[in-house]
Amino acid sequence: MRIGVLTSGGDCPGLNAVIRSVVHRAVVDHGDEVIGFHDGWKGLLECDYRKLDLDAVGGILARGGTILGSSRVQPAHLVDGVERARGHVADLGLDAIIPIGGEGTLKAANLLSEAGLPIVGVPKTIDNDIASTDVTFGFDTAVTVATEALDRLKTTAESHQRVLVVEVMGRHTGWIALHSGMAAGAHAIVVPERPFDMDELTSRVGARFADGKRFAIVVVAEGAKPREGSMEFKTAGTDIYGHERFTGVANQLSVELERRLGKEARPVILGHVQRGGTPTAYDRVLATRFGWHAVEAAHRGEFGMLTALRGTDIVMVPLAKAVETLKTVPADRYAEAECVL
Amino acid sequence: MRIGVLTSGGDCPGLNAVIRSVVHRAVVDHGDEVIGFHDGWKGLLECDYRKLDLDAVGGILARGGTILGSSRVQPAHLVDGVERARGHVADLGLDAIIPIGGEGTLKAANLLSEAGLPIVGVPKTIDNDIASTDVTFGFDTAVTVATEALDRLKTTAESHQRVLVVEVMGRHTGWIALHSGMAAGAHAIVVPERPFDMDELTSRVGARFADGKRFAIVVVAEGAKPREGSMEFKTAGTDIYGHERFTGVANQLSVELERRLGKEARPVILGHVQRGGTPTAYDRVLATRFGWHAVEAAHRGEFGMLTALRGTDIVMVPLAKAVETLKTVPADRYAEAECVL
Amino acid sequence: MRIGVLTSGGDCPGLNAVIRSVVHRAVVDHGDEVIGFHDGWKGLLECDYRKLDLDAVGGILARGGTILGSSRVQPAHLVDGVERARGHVADLGLDAIIPIGGEGTLKAANLLSEAGLPIVGVPKTIDNDIASTDVTFGFDTAVTVATEALDRLKTTAESHQRVLVVEVMGRHTGWIALHSGMAAGAHAIVVPERPFDMDELTSRVGARFADGKRFAIVVVAEGAKPREGSMEFKTAGTDIYGHERFTGVANQLSVELERRLGKEARPVILGHVQRGGTPTAYDRVLATRFGWHAVEAAHRGEFGMLTALRGTDIVMVPLAKAVETLKTVPADRYAEAECVL
Amino acid sequence: MRIGVLTSGGDCPGLNAVIRSVVHRAVVDHGDEVIGFHDGWKGLLECDYRKLDLDAVGGILARGGTILGSSRVQPAHLVDGVERARGHVADLGLDAIIPIGGEGTLKAANLLSEAGLPIVGVPKTIDNDIASTDVTFGFDTAVTVATEALDRLKTTAESHQRVLVVEVMGRHTGWIALHSGMAAGAHAIVVPERPFDMDELTSRVGARFADGKRFAIVVVAEGAKPREGSMEFKTAGTDIYGHERFTGVANQLSVELERRLGKEARPVILGHVQRGGTPTAYDRVLATRFGWHAVEAAHRGEFGMLTALRGTDIVMVPLAKAVETLKTVPADRYAEAECVL
Repeated sequence: MRIGVLTSGGDCPGLNAVIRSVVHRAVVDHGDEVIGFHDGWKGLLECDYRKLDLDAVGGILARGGTILGSSRVQPAHLVDGVERARGHVADLGLDAIIPIGGEGTLKAANLLSEAGLPIVGVPKTIDNDIASTDVTFGFDTAVTVATEALDRLKTTAESHQRVLVVEVMGRHTGWIALHSGMAAGAHAIVVPERPFDMDELTSRVGARFADGKRFAIVVVAEGAKPREGSMEFKTAGTDIYGHERFTGVANQLSVELERRLGKEARPVILGHVQRGGTPTAYDRVLATRFGWHAVEAAHRGEFGMLTALRGTDIVMVPLAKAVETLKTVPADRYAEAECVL
Repeated sequence: MRIGVLTSGGDCPGLNAVIRSVVHRAVVDHGDEVIGFHDGWKGLLECDYRKLDLDAVGGILARGGTILGSSRVQPAHLVDGVERARGHVADLGLDAIIPIGGEGTLKAANLLSEAGLPIVGVPKTIDNDIASTDVTFGFDTAVTVATEALDRLKTTAESHQRVLVVEVMGRHTGWIALHSGMAAGAHAIVVPERPFDMDELTSRVGARFADGKRFAIVVVAEGAKPREGSMEFKTAGTDIYGHERFTGVANQLSVELERRLGKEARPVILGHVQRGGTPTAYDRVLATRFGWHAVEAAHRGEFGMLTALRGTDIVMVPLAKAVETLKTVPADRYAEAECVL
Repeated sequence: MRIGVLTSGGDCPGLNAVIRSVVHRAVVDHGDEVIGFHDGWKGLLECDYRKLDLDAVGGILARGGTILGSSRVQPAHLVDGVERARGHVADLGLDAIIPIGGEGTLKAANLLSEAGLPIVGVPKTIDNDIASTDVTFGFDTAVTVATEALDRLKTTAESHQRVLVVEVMGRHTGWIALHSGMAAGAHAIVVPERPFDMDELTSRVGARFADGKRFAIVVVAEGAKPREGSMEFKTAGTDIYGHERFTGVANQLSVELERRLGKEARPVILGHVQRGGTPTAYDRVLATRFGWHAVEAAHRGEFGMLTALRGTDIVMVPLAKAVETLKTVPADRYAEAECVL
Repeated sequence: MRIGVLTSGGDCPGLNAVIRSVVHRAVVDHGDEVIGFHDGWKGLLECDYRKLDLDAVGGILARGGTILGSSRVQPAHLVDGVERARGHVADLGLDAIIPIGGEGTLKAANLLSEAGLPIVGVPKTIDNDIASTDVTFGFDTAVTVATEALDRLKTTAESHQRVLVVEVMGRHTGWIALHSGMAAGAHAIVVPERPFDMDELTSRVGARFADGKRFAIVVVAEGAKPREGSMEFKTAGTDIYGHERFTGVANQLSVELERRLGKEARPVILGHVQRGGTPTAYDRVLATRFGWHAVEAAHRGEFGMLTALRGTDIVMVPLAKAVETLKTVPADRYAEAECVL
């Protein structure tokens, strides 16, 4: 068999572990050949690739990033390129393509699959928002990095009597905020799924100080927004040097909390640190299993499918279903967190 | 409601997170009273306890160990003590008891439950061998600690051309060996579920050197044993200073590999480091959820049950079922690991 | 002997280790009494303190922050309070006061010492800018946290072909930037001691891309500034929501690099994470030694002095000298770093 | 200039950082050529080497081990090989040789230097026992790994009321034991420099339990021995499977403490984990500076010298002096530690 693999979309710890696993399983156990396309779908469209043998994947299991490079996918661009992709797949004699990517990548994968290309997808997102799998690799690493930062911030907030508003990743869903906030014992968790009421948040944080506590930690997902009318909120504006900028929620929240509470409040934006570096053991195991099962599915001819974790099993689910909805934080999970903060 | 909580059996990162979560949920949300028994079942039998309020559980979320202390349970001893326990429960006016523990503890919990005491169990074992739950807290921390050690050991093995045989925890099951071995890219994983064939293991490790590689890492669970007749193996003996000692598998395996391969082989025994210290974010979240749901079960009057993780949900399962069988590493999980080593 | 201890100024990992060490040495070995003033000099001026015995310092060695609390010192305020302080010292029967703090604190300490109070100072700053000691505790932790973040950021920059401009602490000196940049192999290090030339920096970073490299990491100290006329630069301005704000150098540098190079450039501001949390082993040892020697100096009657590290020895230096100049990154240290980037 | 570099002796985090720094400084700044000998002195004697350019040292700064491989030096073997080495140096046109190694390597380096070869040594030992430098790289990493393990072990000892005897590296000197023991707040530290009195140690540990404490941690350097007559002690013996074995001090100490105190006592042997893996930021900076200065010394023609840290400066010291004595833990440093345990 001849298999092509590519990584697409934002960076995510565990990508290299999937690539390595695909190569080990395919080459060692099945005697397959594996090639890797460079920079995501771009590599497929431009037929830019290299051969992946065991040496090519030596020492990458614990390394962050992706040895194949990545780029953001432009679905429209890809639609135009379906025929070109089909041509390259035929020329290269590929029996299967394994794209590793997030929502956008999987939508693109579904398009190509519906156009008849032999696709087995592997889901990837640090945000954990893909509905068809219990967990995606990269998420545990992001939560771990955020939790370690929160652990550190707790002591420094305490020494100086202040509120820290810590912004973690999560444009559309609050999974990282929920888990890191629970793990670190944050005093409020703000997620995109539930627009926050500024009065309520203020009184929650204020209650801690009224109680004699010296500090508070608020964890907020980058995509969180206030309830309509709850506070003035800008999503973009001109920054100090005249550039149009996305305006961070942590910045605005800390300004507003400081004004309302009369306590020093400071934003901390964790940023890209959450998506780089060595994956956790959990993510390496999950990524390795996904790679293994993607190869198996290809050998069974199960195309148009996606690897997914269900409980402790890896199962295959239809790509078409996987991209239908985003997995958001349900109300009962949020309630669990809230009461033990 | 009045709730008693206790921790029993071997140490496990996340115990304090459960205790904290029970107290937060019960005291803050339900207005309950919580007491903690000291040193496991011993505390219940001797009516040795203290009150647990919010201050008592401040700052313990990320701390290893257990603020309540623990001791190993003697089931026979407990059977004799059922009436005493019942008396103390009545005297203290307890509406629920939440024991947090491993296999032995849960068997004891089941005994007391069958004797009519209002028990909601929380499973705990770094070994991950409790059948009714997908995962137990403590396991992820143990795997993380083992993986970090393996990551470090890989570079030093490489510089000096040697075999390292690394013994991780797991008396009866190989989960820690399997996951840490997969995560770190070990070259052989030896688990109790599958007695190893010394010839096969030797040739596997030898093949690496024949291939020009400079080192090999073998991960072995402490309870692993050779296939009958495969090599001479002692489970105990007199040590150098004349004491009867449990004889480690890593010691014997490294001696045997060195003899057969003519390469330096060294044992490394990770030991107690795996069960102490700050729990990972994963374990803190799981432990917190278990505590939350144990309180809820008590309030619903669901006794004789155990909290369990199924997929992403926390569910309640009968204690009696939970202790029937040990969850061992199934053949297909072992096969997954083997092929990508 | 009766000793008062206080912590003042910004947070710094290792403060608790000093407090613990003072108490252990004084109480256990000398039979002294120790009290701790709350929230820095404020506690001394308001006679707000508590007794510190062995139990009070149990378990704090590895904890970030300070159990005594801290506040920024207002030197003018302190001058007015000299008599009040003297009165409290007399009333409490204190034979020695051990303030632990940075430049501001030590200047205040020197004032009080010249007014006749029995002071033994312990230097503290994560910035490492106190001239009289080779190193201050807290610095190694800050460098370690920054380096771990840089290690993570390297892989994510690489996967996406971009420049990351990482802002680390250092208002007046570039020690954290220098050490973390060297440790992580940054491609440019920008320090306050040497105003950067924007053309030179652009060509340095651009050269990497010309060379076929996919990313660049620039480490910049928060206090760094461009050479006069080298680029437009604002130190403060009105932010998007109309607040006057300190304008970060990383933000401006990344905007400018993106404009000049035509490559995506992003700022990452590490912030308070650098000064919180568990101190490194190095900082715990140094802090412990400082505490020990401060008590010894007090018992020898060596007041008006400061503990300092010289090579591997702890020595005492006059407070007056210690606060004269700031220790800046010398040209030859910067040159060392530059050539191996 | 043409420079040969080699790494010899036991593994040590930071070796790759030195190699990288030598190559960067020599190739980029001086336009030199650099070659690396494989497996230490063996590579020089057998003329087994490879060219080291910038690509060859890409990505190795934070990696443990050595890309050049290492082997233990046999001084006698080297003496016989002096003429062979001289021949290879001439054939290869080498202007300088930079051996990176510990005591044995530096003795060998001194021999070759006295025989007229152009040697600039770089000291390396995790044990920190080289007299002519304040610190060696690798030491901080070893102490950090040991301290993290001790931090973890503390919580698990506490939960179960036991003594843990933790053996760290240090055949001849107790630096790792001293620093990790101080950093982690061990309750006794046992070093080779001061044979321990078993009665004294027992009473020290026993006092903790008498005091109501639930556990004790004893850190012991692998080379520690009891005072003559203080307890029966074996340095080697036949193990359970009939092999002659070095007998660990932690094993014997824990057996003896358990017998004398009637408390469970367990040995934990950290082993090779201490010398592998990613170096700390501290070690990377020190190693990088050593490499830089070794190249500078070669260019100044300062041969027969060793790089050394003195305070914050890197200085050159004569190789002959450097190998005269071992740097042991002095009595006053031990006293400092003892009193704050």
